[in-house]
Amino acid sequence: MNPVPITNIKKQLEKITEYWSPRVVATVNNQYVKVAKLKGQFVWHKHENEDELFMVVYGRLQIELENDDVIVLEEGEFCVIPKNTMHNPIADEECGIVLIEPVSTLHTGDVNSPLTKTIEEQLRD
Amino acid sequence: MNPVPITNIKKQLEKITEYWSPRVVATVNNQYVKVAKLKGQFVWHKHENEDELFMVVYGRLQIELENDDVIVLEEGEFCVIPKNTMHNPIADEECGIVLIEPVSTLHTGDVNSPLTKTIEEQLRD
Repeated sequence: MNPVPITNIKKQLEKITEYWSPRVVATVNNQYVKVAKLKGQFVWHKHENEDELFMVVYGRLQIELENDDVIVLEEGEFCVIPKNTMHNPIADEECGIVLIEPVSTLHTGDVNSPLTKTIEEQLRD
Repeated sequence: MNPVPITNIKKQLEKITEYWSPRVVATVNNQYVKVAKLKGQFVWHKHENEDELFMVVYGRLQIELENDDVIVLEEGEFCVIPKNTMHNPIADEECGIVLIEPVSTLHTGDVNSPLTKTIEEQLRD
């Protein structure tokens, strides 16, 4: 058995059947690497102590920030939302992303929403 | 000024003029996100306390491991070399990669090589 598994990001994304439902695909230094498919609007939230990296694999992701700032990530682009920064991801069309965040992070941050997935749900096969 | 900078991975890779010379492009939870161009052979090394993520953006990266194991990463694939694991990256042709490793990590690990770049060199513009 290979001691170091290889993760194909697009193949992992193909397994996802539900929007806003991240799936853990690897761990690096106590950070989870997750993939997710997004479409529509999420919820405004922040993570008090944790930065969150969003990388777009396909499609386009808007992230609304406080003060009416908006950033737009295209394929092959990423950003890091600093800890304690309110943000609201929006995808007009489906997009596939990679997320990096600490093992401790709840993806809806300080907000408990119907969209909130437990870490057990994110660790599913 | 936008409070959350956007990083275009391919554009960052285009700025790189030297092989085996990573460039820090972002920080997330005390981890550096780096880009690098690789060609040829690096040095066998390990990182005692730190995992290291390798993601291939273009080209192909081989990583030799102990016990004659070899993994091959193609475009859009990544792996995490666990802490304390001897490894030796090889690129027969040029490849462009993203690395994620703790701020404390020296890219040649426990080996001081002519290829070793200081963190100041990796933080260059």
